[in-house]
Amino acid sequence: MVRIVTKFGGTSLATPERVLSVARRLVAYHNEGNEVVAVVSAMGSATDDLLTLARSVNASPPARELDMLLATGEMVSMSVVAMAIASLGVQAVSLTGRQAGILTTSTHNKATISGLRCDRVRQALEDDTIVIVAGFQGITDNDDITTLGRGGSDTTAVALAAGLGADRCEIYSDVDGVYTCDPRVVPRARKLDEVSYEEMLELAAAGAGVLQMRAVEFARNFGVVLLCKSAFSSNPGTTVKEATMESAVVSGIAYDKSEAKITIRNVPDSLGIAAVVFEAIASSGINVDMIVQNISENGFTDISFTSPAHELPRLRPVLDGLLERLGIREYLVDDTIAKISVVGAGMKSNPGIAAKMFKVLAEHNVNIEMISTSAIRISVVIDGASTSGALQALHTAFGLDADDLFEETQLSAEELAAKAAKGR
Amino acid sequence: MVRIVTKFGGTSLATPERVLSVARRLVAYHNEGNEVVAVVSAMGSATDDLLTLARSVNASPPARELDMLLATGEMVSMSVVAMAIASLGVQAVSLTGRQAGILTTSTHNKATISGLRCDRVRQALEDDTIVIVAGFQGITDNDDITTLGRGGSDTTAVALAAGLGADRCEIYSDVDGVYTCDPRVVPRARKLDEVSYEEMLELAAAGAGVLQMRAVEFARNFGVVLLCKSAFSSNPGTTVKEATMESAVVSGIAYDKSEAKITIRNVPDSLGIAAVVFEAIASSGINVDMIVQNISENGFTDISFTSPAHELPRLRPVLDGLLERLGIREYLVDDTIAKISVVGAGMKSNPGIAAKMFKVLAEHNVNIEMISTSAIRISVVIDGASTSGALQALHTAFGLDADDLFEETQLSAEELAAKAAKGR
Repeated sequence: MVRIVTKFGGTSLATPERVLSVARRLVAYHNEGNEVVAVVSAMGSATDDLLTLARSVNASPPARELDMLLATGEMVSMSVVAMAIASLGVQAVSLTGRQAGILTTSTHNKATISGLRCDRVRQALEDDTIVIVAGFQGITDNDDITTLGRGGSDTTAVALAAGLGADRCEIYSDVDGVYTCDPRVVPRARKLDEVSYEEMLELAAAGAGVLQMRAVEFARNFGVVLLCKSAFSSNPGTTVKEATMESAVVSGIAYDKSEAKITIRNVPDSLGIAAVVFEAIASSGINVDMIVQNISENGFTDISFTSPAHELPRLRPVLDGLLERLGIREYLVDDTIAKISVVGAGMKSNPGIAAKMFKVLAEHNVNIEMISTSAIRISVVIDGASTSGALQALHTAFGLDADDLFEETQLSAEELAAKAAKGR
Repeated sequence: MVRIVTKFGGTSLATPERVLSVARRLVAYHNEGNEVVAVVSAMGSATDDLLTLARSVNASPPARELDMLLATGEMVSMSVVAMAIASLGVQAVSLTGRQAGILTTSTHNKATISGLRCDRVRQALEDDTIVIVAGFQGITDNDDITTLGRGGSDTTAVALAAGLGADRCEIYSDVDGVYTCDPRVVPRARKLDEVSYEEMLELAAAGAGVLQMRAVEFARNFGVVLLCKSAFSSNPGTTVKEATMESAVVSGIAYDKSEAKITIRNVPDSLGIAAVVFEAIASSGINVDMIVQNISENGFTDISFTSPAHELPRLRPVLDGLLERLGIREYLVDDTIAKISVVGAGMKSNPGIAAKMFKVLAEHNVNIEMISTSAIRISVVIDGASTSGALQALHTAFGLDADDLFEETQLSAEELAAKAAKGR
C-alpha cells in the first residue's frame, strides 16, 4: 500500500471539466490500490476575486477577517473535488484545514504551521476514502482560521506528507517541472529530472516560481521527496530531493524583475550606521534582499540595497526620515533593475564560476551593478532591459542549452491540445 | 444596555454598497449603546451559484459535501460585513456556525439545532465588538459542517436571540413586513403591525414567504419577539409575538401555487387502505399536505391529496407501484391548482368564518375542490386560474382592505428610490 499526497493548484481546478480531470487522476491512483490525499488550492481566480470583494468594502481589511474570507476559496474547491470523485463512484471526504488538523501560529495572512493532528485524515484513508484537504489554511489555538500566505497550499501538502509518512508528495501545477531557466525567455531551457532541496531553495528565492520556498524548506527538514508535475500532461516532471553525490556545477538560472535598487549616497561612515538604516526599514516590515556597501571615501560611503518594488510607497517615508536623522543628502531609486542568479550545488567544489559569469556578462556588454553570493548561488543586479540577452548568454555558457530544442520540451498531440484548451 | 440580534437576507447583502449600508445600520445600533449581533445569509445569488457549480460535477452531490460547499456562502458574507464595519472604525468579528456554537443534528442539508454554546459570542459582546454570525450553518458532534435547509438563517437568528437572552430579534429582508395578503396580487393588502406566533405559523405554512416556519416555531417556543423589517427602508415592520387578548377574526390570507393535487380513483374501501397509500409515499420522503377521502360508494372510494408539484417525478413511480399492489385502476394529477388559506386567531371564538369563505367563493364562481381546516385556519384548493380574483374577493369580504390604498403602503421618495435601485 503506497500513500500519496498530491497537491493541485488553482489553474488545474479552474473549470468543472478540469475538476473532473483531477478527480479521474485521483480515482486512478486509488484504484491502483494507493491511499490518496489531495491538497487543493482555490479554483482559478477565486482568491483574487475574494480579495477584490474585500477591498470593495474596506481598502485595508482586518487580517483575521481576510483569512476568514480567503479560506472559503479552498473550501469551495475541496468540496467540489470530493463531489466529482463521488460522481465517479469512489468515496471521498473533504476536510477543512481545521478538520485535517493543520495547527498554525496566529499571524494572520502569513501563519506558519505549528503542529499537525492527522487522526481524521488517517481514519478516512483506512476507510478506503480519498481525502481532499483545503490547502493554504489552518487553525489557531484560539479556534480562528488562518492562511499560510500565497502558495501556502504547497506547504500544506508537504506538511501532510511529512505528518502522514507519505511515500510521495506530488505537486501538480500548470508547468511541467523545474527548468534550467524560464522557457518563455530562454527557449532552449531544459526541464530538470532532479534538483536538490538546496538548489530548489536558491532558485525559488531567486525568482523561479514553480515551488514555494517554505514548502521546499519543509520538505528538506522532514525529508519529503517532492515531484513537480503538470496537471495537463503525463510528462514525468522534476523530483526535488537530497543532493546526489555528483552535482551539476550550474543547475539553473533564475531571474527576478520585481525588485528596486535603492542607493543612499554619502552616508557618514561611522560605526553602526548600517544598523540604524536597516533597523528602521525592518521595523516597517519591509523586506531587504541584497545589501552592498562600498568602500569609504573621505569618511563617507554609499549603501545600496534591493527591496520589492511594490514596497516603495512605504519605503520612501522611512528613507526620508533617515535623511533628516542621519544628515544624508539624497537617495536614488531604480525600479528598472533585474536580479539574475546562477544556482548549482556543484559550485562549492568548482571555483571560478563567479569569474566566468562576470566575464560572459562583460562580453555581452551587460554592466553589473551589485553582486551577492551564497555557497551555491551567485546573484547580480543588472539593467532590466538586458535580462533576456544575459539569461540566454549565461544559459549557453554554462552548458544548459537543450541539445535539441525539441528533445526535452516536445509535447504529444494530446498535451498540445490540453495546453491550447487552457488558453496558453 | 440592550442586546439586539439582527438577521440580514441575501438580497440585503447582494452588492458592496448594500453590505456597507447594513454595516452602517449595525454601527448606528452599536453607537447607541446596544450590544449587536448580526446573522447573515449568503450574498445575493451566491447559494444558487454554488448549487449550480456542485451540479456541474455531480448531478446529485453527496449531502455532506453539499453542506461544506454551501456553508462557504455565509462565510463570505459574514467576513465581508465584518470588514465593512471595520472600515467604519468599529470593532467587529465574524464567527462561523461552529465558532458561534451552533450545534446541530447530523442530518445534512436539513439539520436542526440541537444545542447552543454562546460563550464566544458573549465574550465578544462584552469586548464591545459587533458579532457577525454565519446563518444557515452549524456543526455536528463529529465536527462536520451542516446546513439548516433553505431559510435556515432565520432560525439561526432566533436561536441565538434565545440563547443570548436578546431583547429583540430583528429579521431584515426585502419586504416591509407581514401583509394581510401578497401585495403583488392584492394591491389593497395592508401591512400588519402585529401578528401572533400561531397566525404567523399558519400563514407561513400556507405559503406566505416572509418568515421561515421553523424560525417562528423556535421563536414561539422560546418566547423570542420577532420584528420583520425591510433592509431598504425605515418602515416600522411587523412584530411577531404572543397573541394579545383581542385577536382579529381574520389576520391574513395566504396562497400557494406550488402544489399538485393527486386523486386516486376507486380505491377498495377496506380497513387500512389509506395507511398503505400514505406510508408508501412517506417512505419515499415526499411531503403530503392536505388529504381528503370521499365517502364510500359500492365499497370503493376516492382519495385526494396535495404534494409539492416538483416532487411529481418521484411520486409517479410510487403511485404506479400502488396501482398494481392495490388493484387500483387510475390516479389523476392536477398541477394547476392553488391553495388559499384564511388565517386568524380570532376564528376560534367566531363561528361561521368557513361558511362565509365558501359563500364568497361561490358568489365569485370559484369552485372548491378540497377543504382542510385547523383551529385558526381554513384552506381550500381551487383552480389556479381563479387565484387572484378569489384572493381579492376574500380580502374585501373579511375587511382586510386598506382604507386608503396609499395610507399604509405609501413610500417616501427615498424608499421609492431604494426600491427602484434594487430593480423591483
